[in-house]
Amino acid sequence: MTIYDWHTGPYPARVRIALGELGLQAQVRFVSIDLWKGKHKTPAFLAKNYSGTLPVLELDDDTLIAECTAITQYLDALNGKPVLTGTTPLQQGVIHMMSKRAEIELLDAVSVYFHHATPGLGPDVELYQNEEWGLRQRDKAVRGMRYFDGVLQHRAFVAGDTFSMADITVIGGLIFAELVGLAVPAECKALLDWYARMQERPSVRNRITMSEPAEAAA
Amino acid sequence: MTIYDWHTGPYPARVRIALGELGLQAQVRFVSIDLWKGKHKTPAFLAKNYSGTLPVLELDDDTLIAECTAITQYLDALNGKPVLTGTTPLQQGVIHMMSKRAEIELLDAVSVYFHHATPGLGPDVELYQNEEWGLRQRDKAVRGMRYFDGVLQHRAFVAGDTFSMADITVIGGLIFAELVGLAVPAECKALLDWYARMQERPSVRNRITMSEPAEAAA
Repeated sequence: MTIYDWHTGPYPARVRIALGELGLQAQVRFVSIDLWKGKHKTPAFLAKNYSGTLPVLELDDDTLIAECTAITQYLDALNGKPVLTGTTPLQQGVIHMMSKRAEIELLDAVSVYFHHATPGLGPDVELYQNEEWGLRQRDKAVRGMRYFDGVLQHRAFVAGDTFSMADITVIGGLIFAELVGLAVPAECKALLDWYARMQERPSVRNRITMSEPAEAAA
Repeated sequence: MTIYDWHTGPYPARVRIALGELGLQAQVRFVSIDLWKGKHKTPAFLAKNYSGTLPVLELDDDTLIAECTAITQYLDALNGKPVLTGTTPLQQGVIHMMSKRAEIELLDAVSVYFHHATPGLGPDVELYQNEEWGLRQRDKAVRGMRYFDGVLQHRAFVAGDTFSMADITVIGGLIFAELVGLAVPAECKALLDWYARMQERPSVRNRITMSEPAEAAA
């Protein structure tokens, strides 16, 4: 399997964390697509993913799977024993709901803020910006942090009693928020405590170095 | 099971079509949330779905599942024989990818156009509009139509050889486009032919009347 991504990207982090949780990292070859040079918007890359986003998974038969949720669903199903996307219908439903909510209310909102109300990836890549919209999304993301803080006051993990894809999506949101200097409000203690716990997981801690060649890690 | 939705809504259509495909409509009680009166933005409804969107599924144990993809995943898994979300990892990955792409590139784009660059649900509900952003999303949706036309020139269905959740999401996008008067370009013949075939499916044809009491259908 090949993953096209960028080692520090928040969306790439979602799939890297999933790979780490599933112990699949050794089966993946990483190909860097330089976000800062807009390589994800070139015609060659758009042919792999119409939406021009990272990461993209390419299987050995050339099948392309884009979108973090879809890639995670694929990887988690591979050995028939899903651990990130749920086993019962109820778990599957709640995990997909909470992961999508984490996109809408946090991760995607931070992304829009970054691309529209900050310099983003720079003037050569950010060809259109709508600052007002970006600032609205920043405020939405902070509200989203408060929402997830409320969730985590009552649960150990975002979608229930166990770590899941929904936790990974919120982690992606907080990684992106850190990158753009958007702080989690100090009173969001449950969210901050949960995030500290998440950062102790090897999958989260080692996500960036995951793409280094094996010899470099030795 | 209870579904909170609005009978003509494009997102509600996605779950209604899924219910029809799965033959589950008789097991569902529908509760109308009047979009045009902003009933999906009241504190009472926001307690059911933080994002303030329809539809929401409420199970008999009071569990709430929002987000069309999550609800579809739940319903499709119920009897252990999924027909809308794939059975192999590859099918699951591709269906989730194409459904998400249909959201980003078509359905959600039309929705933003509607809420931001048209009167939308009216001034009492649309408390903030960003017209420029809405118009960009309109143009994105039309490009999305051309993309899905290209996909359907090579496949019978959006995610492969069989009908799936991804077809439902594109159908939702075209339902919303019709509602806002955004026409599919005439040269998108594969998309238009596919849509004509889709409208022959009972699940699509009967989605609005699905919520009528049984006696009214007699």
